Amino acid sequence: MSRPSAIDALIQAFRCLPGVGPKSAQRMTYHVLQRDRDGGKQLSAALREAVERVGNCSRCRTLTDADICPVCSDASRDASVLCVVESPSDMTAIDKGTGYRGLYFVLMGHLSPLDGIGPEQLGLKHLEQRLEEGEVQEVVLATSSTVEGQATAHYIGEMVHAKGLRATRLAYGIPFGGELEFVDSTTLAHAFQGRIEFE
Amino acid sequence: MSRPSAIDALIQAFRCLPGVGPKSAQRMTYHVLQRDRDGGKQLSAALREAVERVGNCSRCRTLTDADICPVCSDASRDASVLCVVESPSDMTAIDKGTGYRGLYFVLMGHLSPLDGIGPEQLGLKHLEQRLEEGEVQEVVLATSSTVEGQATAHYIGEMVHAKGLRATRLAYGIPFGGELEFVDSTTLAHAFQGRIEFE
Repeated sequence: MSRPSAIDALIQAFRCLPGVGPKSAQRMTYHVLQRDRDGGKQLSAALREAVERVGNCSRCRTLTDADICPVCSDASRDASVLCVVESPSDMTAIDKGTGYRGLYFVLMGHLSPLDGIGPEQLGLKHLEQRLEEGEVQEVVLATSSTVEGQATAHYIGEMVHAKGLRATRLAYGIPFGGELEFVDSTTLAHAFQGRIEFE
Repeated sequence: MSRPSAIDALIQAFRCLPGVGPKSAQRMTYHVLQRDRDGGKQLSAALREAVERVGNCSRCRTLTDADICPVCSDASRDASVLCVVESPSDMTAIDKGTGYRGLYFVLMGHLSPLDGIGPEQLGLKHLEQRLEEGEVQEVVLATSSTVEGQATAHYIGEMVHAKGLRATRLAYGIPFGGELEFVDSTTLAHAFQGRIEFE
C-alpha cells in the first residue's frame, strides 16, 4: 500500500511517549486494537482535552486546567512557606509524600544558559514579585541535586536573602531503607556531616 | 475541585496501555503537556482513526484498515503455504524476521475453553473452508509453545491431516546467541533430540 496504514500511523504516534520504543509502541497498538478499543477511545479524548485545555497556573506556574490550580486556591494552606521546585511532578511527589502544607512555585525547568534558559524563562521575576507581596516568610529550595539544580537554588537563594527572607533546602542524607554500601560517597559524606543526636 | 482535572483524567487514561502503571502514566502525561503537545495531538488523532477504521482482514483475520490486508492481497506470495499464528504481532515478527513468503491465518487467540474460546472464536470454520479451496498444500503451525498454544496447534494439525494436507511446526532449539547455561532444560532436551549434522 502506498499510504501508511492506520496501524502503522498509530505505532509511530505512540513513539512520542517517553520510554516507548518501536517494540512497546507495537505492543500498545495491538493491545488497544485487539483488547481495549474503549480504552483507546477514552485515551484519544483525554489527550485532546488535556492538550487543548491545560495551561499554567497564574500563581505557581504548575500545569492546570483552571486559571489558579487547586493547591494555590486551597485557603487552608500555609501561605507563609513557598516551596520552589523544578517541575509539576516534583510538586506532586512532595505533596503526596510529605506532610508539607505550604504553597509552591514551579520553575518548569532549571537555569541552563547554553539552552537559553535564564531567570526570565523560569519566571523568577514573577517569583520576586510574589516575595514582595509580604506573605511569604520562608522559601524552601527543592530543586534537583544536579549541578543545574544547585546553581538554580543558589541563584534563587541569593534573591530570597536579598529580600531579608529565610531560605532553606532539603536535607541530604542516606535514602531511607537503602543499604549503606550502595550509597555514593558524596551522599555519605553529606549524611555524616549532617549527623544528629540518636534518640 | 469536585470533577477530576484534565490532567488526572489523562493520567488515568494512559493506564489502559500495557505495562503502564501510575508512575509511567504520570510521566507520560507531564511529558506530553510540558514538552510535546504536537505529539499528543497526533497520538490522539491516530488513536481515534485506528480505533474507528481498523477491522479484521476477511481472508486471514489479521488487523487491517482495508477489507483484505496488504499481505493477503500481495499476488507475489506463495499461496500454497499457510502459516497459522495466534496474533498480528506474531505475524509481523515472522514476516519481518524470516524469509517466509507464504500467507497467514491469524487465530486472534488460542483455544481456552474456560474463557469460552473454542474453535468458533478462532475462526477455524473459516480456516477449514480455506483449506478446502484447494490452494493450500502445507500448513505451518506457529502457535506459542505454551500449553494452550500447543493444544491449539494439535487441534488444527488434526484438521489439516484429515484434509490430507501437510502440517509442519517450527523447530525447537536453543535461541541463537544465547548462553547454554541459561537455556531451560525442556528447550535443551528438544535441542538435543533435534540435533543435526555439523557442517
